[in-house]
Amino acid sequence: MRPICFLSDFGLSDDFAGTCKGVIARIAPQATVIDLTHDVPDFDIVFGAETLAHATHYMPEDTVYMAVVDPGVGTQRRGVALCSHNGALLVGPDNGLLIPAAQELGGVKTAVSLTDTDYHLHPTSATFHGRDIFSPAAAHLSAGLPLLRLGKEIPASSLTKIEMPTSTLHPDGSVQATIMDIDRYGNARLSIVEDEKSLLQSGPYLLKTHEGELPLRRAKTFGEARPGELLLVPDSHRRLSLSINGGHAARALMLQRGDTVTITPTT
Amino acid sequence: MRPICFLSDFGLSDDFAGTCKGVIARIAPQATVIDLTHDVPDFDIVFGAETLAHATHYMPEDTVYMAVVDPGVGTQRRGVALCSHNGALLVGPDNGLLIPAAQELGGVKTAVSLTDTDYHLHPTSATFHGRDIFSPAAAHLSAGLPLLRLGKEIPASSLTKIEMPTSTLHPDGSVQATIMDIDRYGNARLSIVEDEKSLLQSGPYLLKTHEGELPLRRAKTFGEARPGELLLVPDSHRRLSLSINGGHAARALMLQRGDTVTITPTT
Amino acid sequence: MRPICFLSDFGLSDDFAGTCKGVIARIAPQATVIDLTHDVPDFDIVFGAETLAHATHYMPEDTVYMAVVDPGVGTQRRGVALCSHNGALLVGPDNGLLIPAAQELGGVKTAVSLTDTDYHLHPTSATFHGRDIFSPAAAHLSAGLPLLRLGKEIPASSLTKIEMPTSTLHPDGSVQATIMDIDRYGNARLSIVEDEKSLLQSGPYLLKTHEGELPLRRAKTFGEARPGELLLVPDSHRRLSLSINGGHAARALMLQRGDTVTITPTT
Repeated sequence: MRPICFLSDFGLSDDFAGTCKGVIARIAPQATVIDLTHDVPDFDIVFGAETLAHATHYMPEDTVYMAVVDPGVGTQRRGVALCSHNGALLVGPDNGLLIPAAQELGGVKTAVSLTDTDYHLHPTSATFHGRDIFSPAAAHLSAGLPLLRLGKEIPASSLTKIEMPTSTLHPDGSVQATIMDIDRYGNARLSIVEDEKSLLQSGPYLLKTHEGELPLRRAKTFGEARPGELLLVPDSHRRLSLSINGGHAARALMLQRGDTVTITPTT
Repeated sequence: MRPICFLSDFGLSDDFAGTCKGVIARIAPQATVIDLTHDVPDFDIVFGAETLAHATHYMPEDTVYMAVVDPGVGTQRRGVALCSHNGALLVGPDNGLLIPAAQELGGVKTAVSLTDTDYHLHPTSATFHGRDIFSPAAAHLSAGLPLLRLGKEIPASSLTKIEMPTSTLHPDGSVQATIMDIDRYGNARLSIVEDEKSLLQSGPYLLKTHEGELPLRRAKTFGEARPGELLLVPDSHRRLSLSINGGHAARALMLQRGDTVTITPTT
Repeated sequence: MRPICFLSDFGLSDDFAGTCKGVIARIAPQATVIDLTHDVPDFDIVFGAETLAHATHYMPEDTVYMAVVDPGVGTQRRGVALCSHNGALLVGPDNGLLIPAAQELGGVKTAVSLTDTDYHLHPTSATFHGRDIFSPAAAHLSAGLPLLRLGKEIPASSLTKIEMPTSTLHPDGSVQATIMDIDRYGNARLSIVEDEKSLLQSGPYLLKTHEGELPLRRAKTFGEARPGELLLVPDSHRRLSLSINGGHAARALMLQRGDTVTITPTT
């Protein structure tokens, strides 16, 4: 049975994720469930989409991705299952959450709306499709059910897209980017993929935030920094990140997710 | 090997749950362990019992339930293993924790006190029976050991019972209930199973709390509500829940677990 | 495939641990991963080493231990894999983290520096060796790769050691010890293994902290205490622990990890 990579905003305090794993074990008892994270910020589709897309570089090739960040549950938004061009499967709400991951996996080849109620749990709740619709769908796919059995085929072009934060290169050589995430060590992840902006290779730079300006140096690792020095380093998602060696960069710079910063070469 | 559904109040910060899973893997290396939740509030047997009972609707039929919420560890309370009428197995302290789940699974057919020390870890601690007594018992059951090998059979009638919160229908048509739980979204779970109180089908209602009175409407999903509107919706446990669309109902209404509320039809 | 016992300071909020498990599943799809804990305090090698060493008493014999508490990632510190005299395998940074566990498992028999880049992920990050070097190494070992294939053999004597907190028996019969950990119930774990100090068997004692002195009694379990009484009890790690029945000992005594206390017999 294919492994299932499970991402959600359920947290681990409640029994939501555990209950979904019970549903999966009923249908696909031999499937390995890989909990990617259940701490996506509540209803934050962009955050979930970025995390899922990044994970595709590290999961087994035959993975069934199941992602549930679903502010629209109980409305008319569709539940979908997708097959990518390189054969990975993805299950979740049709709100854009799955699309960046599907693109990393070769793009959407086939898309199905999860309309066949034979593959739903009954009674089907209006508020917990993760348990009642997505978990059974992912488990049936893990166990080998053909994708098209789960419902009606729909055009890939009809899938809801989302706008992911990017970065802008200005004519003066400065780069404007968005803070995508603050990790538990205080590193502020930027919307700049490593090596994407060829100018951000050496520095020194000036970092401009809503609070003021600070000198900034590009480094390969935290270990290169003097204690307290502000660095621009590639992070675990291969994105550039603002980090302070031995400190909490986001608190020091009063940065929050969604803030805009500008990085300007000073040479 | 049978899957093991594991609930506790151990949290995930310490190594308690991880150590139990090591013990299980020694005895039943092929058993799938489904972590239902380890965040039952400390020593809250009623909360754990409700969560475990609900989970029985979603776990595989041959599940071995292992539940550890155990304020009496180190006293004379017994450790028990139960077989239900439909063949599920349950392991944990004899403090009522397992009983509502056993009832959902057809009622207790056979009960055993975990007295055979051949199936305990040695040395056996006085404070961590989850690791030293319940984990080996659940693992041996998963691997096929007959229940009666674990110790002395005891009458089901001798098992400790617990009182679960219920609701009261008053002659004037109002329903009094208890707040059983506040989830991370702020929804306040009531001690009313969906459709149990046929009068709570349409409304409008008046919700009376210790803080005052508010209008309340029954809905099928959050999506039906205007932002900020107070709703009575079925929750993930098929219980009615007080919810505010886009808000935190418990904070807004200053409700805590254990509070009593009254819902009165106003038509 | 051998089970993998996984300890880290990654927490569960980010996707670090989940990503490592994806890497493992690619290489060793049938391996059971036992999450011991991911909540080791950030960069606290001593805490991680104590937890891992204790876990060796409860994990399957053929376990591959993978531990990542790695403040030196990105510097010249080596990554290592060890085989113990009783056949267990351990993978992690060469910063002392693995050594107490290896000692519990019979001592280090063979040590390898993880220099063979064929067994690293590419591109190899400078900041996340847990994912790029240790996870593949642990997974390959789980799947049966001979240890020496992972890199260059190094002398066990060259491995970085750490100093673990111990206790001191003074001529007046008092014992001085360190607070190693405060668990979520408020119990303060001492650097005294149960039965190590034969004098601490009955009491009564006087506990001396930086805040003052309090009477203290030795007990076998919490259940023996009067509510509010201060006890010296063996804890889940077979260490003596300061506990208050029904209370939070660390808060009551204003104790923190690293504090020194003295216990003096008063008879």
